[in-house]
Amino acid sequence: MSSRPERRELERELAGMVGRENVLTEEADLLPYSADHFLRGLQHYLPKFKFLPDAVVTPLETSQVSRILRFASLHRIPVIPRGAGTSLAGQLIPVEGGIVLDLKKMNRIEPRVEDRMVVAGPGATYAELNRELERRGYFFPPEPGSAMACTVGGMVSTNASGSGAVKYGATRNYVLSLEVVLAGGEVVRLGRKVAKSASGYSLKDLFVGSEGTLGVITEITLRVEPYPPIRRTTMAVFPSLEGAFEAAMEILGRGITPASLELLDELCLLALNMSGFSLPEGKGALLLRSDGRYREAVEGEMEEMVRACRGKGAETVGVEDEALGRRLWEAREKISASLTKLLPSPETPRLVFQASVDVGLPLSKMLEYVRRVKALMEERGIMGVCFGHVGDGNVHIGSTFVPESPEQVERARRFQEEAIRLALSLGGTLTAEHGVGLWKAPYLEEEHGYALELMRSLKRLLDPQGILNPGKMALDGIPRVALMERWWEEK
Amino acid sequence: MSSRPERRELERELAGMVGRENVLTEEADLLPYSADHFLRGLQHYLPKFKFLPDAVVTPLETSQVSRILRFASLHRIPVIPRGAGTSLAGQLIPVEGGIVLDLKKMNRIEPRVEDRMVVAGPGATYAELNRELERRGYFFPPEPGSAMACTVGGMVSTNASGSGAVKYGATRNYVLSLEVVLAGGEVVRLGRKVAKSASGYSLKDLFVGSEGTLGVITEITLRVEPYPPIRRTTMAVFPSLEGAFEAAMEILGRGITPASLELLDELCLLALNMSGFSLPEGKGALLLRSDGRYREAVEGEMEEMVRACRGKGAETVGVEDEALGRRLWEAREKISASLTKLLPSPETPRLVFQASVDVGLPLSKMLEYVRRVKALMEERGIMGVCFGHVGDGNVHIGSTFVPESPEQVERARRFQEEAIRLALSLGGTLTAEHGVGLWKAPYLEEEHGYALELMRSLKRLLDPQGILNPGKMALDGIPRVALMERWWEEK
Repeated sequence: MSSRPERRELERELAGMVGRENVLTEEADLLPYSADHFLRGLQHYLPKFKFLPDAVVTPLETSQVSRILRFASLHRIPVIPRGAGTSLAGQLIPVEGGIVLDLKKMNRIEPRVEDRMVVAGPGATYAELNRELERRGYFFPPEPGSAMACTVGGMVSTNASGSGAVKYGATRNYVLSLEVVLAGGEVVRLGRKVAKSASGYSLKDLFVGSEGTLGVITEITLRVEPYPPIRRTTMAVFPSLEGAFEAAMEILGRGITPASLELLDELCLLALNMSGFSLPEGKGALLLRSDGRYREAVEGEMEEMVRACRGKGAETVGVEDEALGRRLWEAREKISASLTKLLPSPETPRLVFQASVDVGLPLSKMLEYVRRVKALMEERGIMGVCFGHVGDGNVHIGSTFVPESPEQVERARRFQEEAIRLALSLGGTLTAEHGVGLWKAPYLEEEHGYALELMRSLKRLLDPQGILNPGKMALDGIPRVALMERWWEEK
Repeated sequence: MSSRPERRELERELAGMVGRENVLTEEADLLPYSADHFLRGLQHYLPKFKFLPDAVVTPLETSQVSRILRFASLHRIPVIPRGAGTSLAGQLIPVEGGIVLDLKKMNRIEPRVEDRMVVAGPGATYAELNRELERRGYFFPPEPGSAMACTVGGMVSTNASGSGAVKYGATRNYVLSLEVVLAGGEVVRLGRKVAKSASGYSLKDLFVGSEGTLGVITEITLRVEPYPPIRRTTMAVFPSLEGAFEAAMEILGRGITPASLELLDELCLLALNMSGFSLPEGKGALLLRSDGRYREAVEGEMEEMVRACRGKGAETVGVEDEALGRRLWEAREKISASLTKLLPSPETPRLVFQASVDVGLPLSKMLEYVRRVKALMEERGIMGVCFGHVGDGNVHIGSTFVPESPEQVERARRFQEEAIRLALSLGGTLTAEHGVGLWKAPYLEEEHGYALELMRSLKRLLDPQGILNPGKMALDGIPRVALMERWWEEK
């Protein structure tokens, strides 16, 4: 092993592998790669809180990724694979510098709908992939909140999902096979391009959700679903948040699995109405989606759900109006953005930590959890919102604070910690869909106990030098960057 | 590490951990544990082909499993976890002796349908689990061929599935969390009892399908599905096998995902008719199942499928007759047993290697595969049948031979090898649902290449002494027991 080369030498070496036009080393060019979507929202307040990589490389094919990793391994240079940068847990931040592998040019999309699958490069976007598939009558359902921008590689790396997961499951359920490049540059195929296999350990499942810490994913084969031609959306607004939960539990308890079952609290409704929607006023709402191949079944399901909601005193909108139904769905996608409308003046707490609490709970514990979190907010003087995918136990909590106030930041940090620990104490998981990254690493051991030691052993086995996306998921000895704890020192 | 204790000492030690009544060491008692379902069928012809364990222990709880593994680890004694013994690939055969852990008494079933899950011990049977669930309106769908007998622990260990996998997926899709005991006796919880998580490496998925080679599963949390109240079954019999395939591809290509889409060849039909069914004569058949919550959708789907089949010249039975539909389903379950009816005299090849070829293929390669396999059978003088789960690319091939004839055995062995290699050459997997065990271990490297080396590294990491179910899945240095190659020496 030789020591880490200097910037110019690094540039020359990398240019030799991928061409000069695919290597960036100037600070201005590196800056966008210092953050993910989550951190970018903070950098305005934290100009010094940035970790620049030494270089950004845009490989075109697997063999280049392999050469880069062999080289990085030899010199112990960190390598951070990157998709669209939409992650919310700090997964992409180059805390130790190194090489960011920008995979956007490895964006091949090869639909094989006759086999009910699609083969894609990691840099293919979810939106483009689904355009190609929908044209052929199929789709890849996980639909994360970042669906307009995210890449398929990023989705596999974080096991991404969203409001369709209650019916269709998360990304993991669709991954049939992966090509990955290991830390030393070895190219390996995991799984087969078939619908079903019981052959050997399922190594592909180890890589799904591993956040770039075990290898670089260079090709993905996904199962695809027939696109359901009939879709209906309805919103039910309730006089109490409890009523919304009770209706959701009744729907699930009847044996219905809707395409979506989304919860919004009072503040979400208010924010949406301030953004131009005219929803009924209420203390909580459910956004219901039903889809399928047969109109009678889709409408029958929606009718049953509407009946359950009305039984809990809900007012429903969009039942008879498909255009409104589509607009309601847009509303759901705009919750995060709409929340800023709630903040009338610069003195109001104004930084919304986007869904920074992203816990998953057993269904029967959700109402208790949301009640206790709301009480905590009140007690701690935190303004925040609760929404989420109530159909699969996933609760998002966004909280606001004035970033210039150390006292407010500390208060928000403590609240979020309490909200995470409360979920764990109720048998929940600390992240249902956003992943661990930097931000949730400090809590991983509380969830997994000895299993975290096993994860660390696997990490050392596959990446003995620790070059792959260091600092993430509490896997290595690199000091944890707990964002809200460190930023004041950084300023 | 001390050396392996003698039988009496072993018995005393184990009795101290689980009670004398839960330890067997007499040869007559050990004999049933020398084989799985697959090998049991052969032992009549191969009286010497049996590998006795040193002891059989029936633990009652996790802490006992932990003590046994600590002890086994100290003395380097092999440990083979065992469910109902219904495996078809030699997964349970104690090739190096050691302790068989019979998990039948760890059979707790705790339905938590309010959370859409169930918690079960590994020894709970699939049938009993589903009785408990169905009473509450839910079910655990994978439905392997051994559904009447198999245990949930066995299903998780082999990622079992069956004729419902095309719509509902294999066992893996349902596993939320596992408690496992590692080789050294450490008890560890993998995953959380929630519907959705993106927290850390998915170690549970490493254990699903690992055939007892990485640890002993002591508790299983499964997601459950609402039981579909409406079910319809129809059989379509075609004038050609090609017609059956074409209809299946048309059904899938239209975007229908039936609850089952089963293929039967001419010999299967003949065998079923010899067993008392009165099916139309034909060269191939599809058994179609549709299920759901809404009658209109289930019947609409069945109607579309029937139309596709009739378009290829099929005669359909059971469309209007629910009782006949149920009987047709029983017929499918009796294919293996019915095949013996085809063998009129002792001179006829009479040992049916139960579905011993169990490959999975891309959907678009299935017809080519079946055609080429049938040609191979003809060329090699093999009598055999083709059937399978055509909806997910899974083809079973049963072949027959006279076990007393070395020449016939060798011919059958070669044919099966060719059938496996043909599947691999078409992009398939060597086992879609039965697993690897002993029998398919010799071919694993051809499928996985360097990924098999990774599997071996993981095995060494988690079981450095190699005590967990040695000899299976080509993971260790223990000579492969390729059944049909060795048995003549053994006689």
